[in-house]
Amino acid sequence: MSRGACSSEREALIAFAHVVEPGDARIGALIDRWGALGLVDRLSSGDIGIREQAAMRARIARVDPCEAEAAAHAIGARIIVRSDREWPTQLDDLGAARPLAIWALGAANLRLTALRSIAVVGARAATAYGEAICRDWCATLSEHSFTVVSGGAYGIDAAAHRATLSVGGMTICVLASGVDTPYPRAHDALLARIADEGLVISESPLGQDVRRQRFLTRNRLIAALTRATLVVEAAVRSGTTSTANSAIALNRPVLAVPGPVTSVMSGGCHKLVRETEAMLASRVEDVLEVIGELGEFIGPSPERRSLDDLSPSQARILDGIPARGVIGIDDLVLDSGLSASEVSGALSVLGILGFVHEQADGWRLARRG
Amino acid sequence: MSRGACSSEREALIAFAHVVEPGDARIGALIDRWGALGLVDRLSSGDIGIREQAAMRARIARVDPCEAEAAAHAIGARIIVRSDREWPTQLDDLGAARPLAIWALGAANLRLTALRSIAVVGARAATAYGEAICRDWCATLSEHSFTVVSGGAYGIDAAAHRATLSVGGMTICVLASGVDTPYPRAHDALLARIADEGLVISESPLGQDVRRQRFLTRNRLIAALTRATLVVEAAVRSGTTSTANSAIALNRPVLAVPGPVTSVMSGGCHKLVRETEAMLASRVEDVLEVIGELGEFIGPSPERRSLDDLSPSQARILDGIPARGVIGIDDLVLDSGLSASEVSGALSVLGILGFVHEQADGWRLARRG
Repeated sequence: MSRGACSSEREALIAFAHVVEPGDARIGALIDRWGALGLVDRLSSGDIGIREQAAMRARIARVDPCEAEAAAHAIGARIIVRSDREWPTQLDDLGAARPLAIWALGAANLRLTALRSIAVVGARAATAYGEAICRDWCATLSEHSFTVVSGGAYGIDAAAHRATLSVGGMTICVLASGVDTPYPRAHDALLARIADEGLVISESPLGQDVRRQRFLTRNRLIAALTRATLVVEAAVRSGTTSTANSAIALNRPVLAVPGPVTSVMSGGCHKLVRETEAMLASRVEDVLEVIGELGEFIGPSPERRSLDDLSPSQARILDGIPARGVIGIDDLVLDSGLSASEVSGALSVLGILGFVHEQADGWRLARRG
Repeated sequence: MSRGACSSEREALIAFAHVVEPGDARIGALIDRWGALGLVDRLSSGDIGIREQAAMRARIARVDPCEAEAAAHAIGARIIVRSDREWPTQLDDLGAARPLAIWALGAANLRLTALRSIAVVGARAATAYGEAICRDWCATLSEHSFTVVSGGAYGIDAAAHRATLSVGGMTICVLASGVDTPYPRAHDALLARIADEGLVISESPLGQDVRRQRFLTRNRLIAALTRATLVVEAAVRSGTTSTANSAIALNRPVLAVPGPVTSVMSGGCHKLVRETEAMLASRVEDVLEVIGELGEFIGPSPERRSLDDLSPSQARILDGIPARGVIGIDDLVLDSGLSASEVSGALSVLGILGFVHEQADGWRLARRG
């Protein structure tokens, strides 16, 4: 029986994180069954039911978890595994596909900062419209103590991180590469600032480059870490919608910002609203209502006082009030064909809604603000 | 027993249309029960259970239906009642609140032109964005033989009528006033052209002016006449949403066009999508799919071929295909950790979806575009 360099569950998880692609639910299920350390044992001593068992045994044997920890510490990073206090337990919603380990750069506590967080994602080729909304809304979300989680990419992602930093908010960047080999390179300075004031995390070990598949598994991590996913702009065929689809699969709310139908970069948002459970968000308040604690952001809206909400008899009475001057209840009864009690009931409601005022000699239209 | 000037059900309906406000379900229910002519009789000889019976009897007696018919004919109009062959039977979905009579100006047959129709409505203070979409989509809807129904108002309504006329399409204008006293006056020429090439209709008798309540009852008529209601632009507090709400109450589909969240005139559309059953329509094809006959406009969409639709193993295989050159199945098996049959299954799907091509010596990425 050879455990390679692994002598604890933590070390075994770190070792598997080096040889299994993020999001591999097949190996994840085996780890759930045997434990990571138990699975290391079985790679040598038993049959774990996968074709590539011998290759995996050889690869696991080549990983030195202690060295991996030391390398992380050398760049100021740490490795968080499932049993750690800093583990964000909402990731367990991913089941067997949840990360084995997370590399983190930054002083903030991942679990605590992710507790009240929202994913803000979108197109790399964002428009000025999308970036402006992103900046504005992220600032408001930060003011309400929400952590803004995104992927560090060009466009919407970068705008989300920058806007949050600019108001002193908390932001987490989830990379598809190792935290020491960030992508895109042009964002080195931005990522350094995020690590300084927030967190840069990845489930890929140090030295790992991005691969197409890793963007998709990274996106599921962004969705799983947060209360909801806000898509600011996205083309119809885009990776951004994979984050949204992951969130939907996890029963996390998805919100999409509409835009001009002539804008390609709003096409993905419109498609999400039309074809999935994604909700349309046209004001940051729509987002706050969804992600806030129950009742936190729900208040009476001034829009409720609309003509559309009047009953037919209320509308008829309102119609009968002259543009200038007052009218008595008796005249309203005669004009409307309603009974006196119906008329005075309607007037009461109209008064409460602010459409009419009662005066000594009758009722008049309220002056509108 | 005095029937005033009424000697037929038709004449009695026309008489009631002069003394009852459009949409009055209370009187409508009495007419459903006794017939219009029967109700005229009972106004004199029985108790119909309404407080204003005496006043109504007096008012009915003052109406001369023959004179009303003659006045309509004098301006080239006709009066359509429920028993007429030209009656659009979809209006019966309004139940007791359905119109008693409809005044129509124009040679087209109301029932036939309304069979395949859509309401296109929106803000009076429309933006250039909304008017451009309205023009574009109405032209396409006309090309697909849909009648465009609207209210003749400034802004979106006028743009809808004009765009339809400009491509030789059929359009119906539903007025809140009598067809001889159209509102707004500035649209006299437009309305004359609609009457010439389409139809101008109203359930208000000749000589009747608009009243606030009549816009709401007119809006329900637009919703009831059509297969679906398309809201192009609307402010949050606006009459346009009353048309949408009427359509929803009638189980007719409502579609709303999104726009910039910074545009007040898209606020009502966004609210409809967020808070009601209204569907988001970002392309005229979205509208055609909803209003077309089953299957008429539904075809495979090129957007279906998206990376998001790949299974994890398909995505992993695609990831393993090199950017240049070919790769054999054996190498893909080794790289991916999947079985040979899983790999070849995934390659088949990727080939069908157009992501990869098979060559004599292995598989390569398909050239895109």
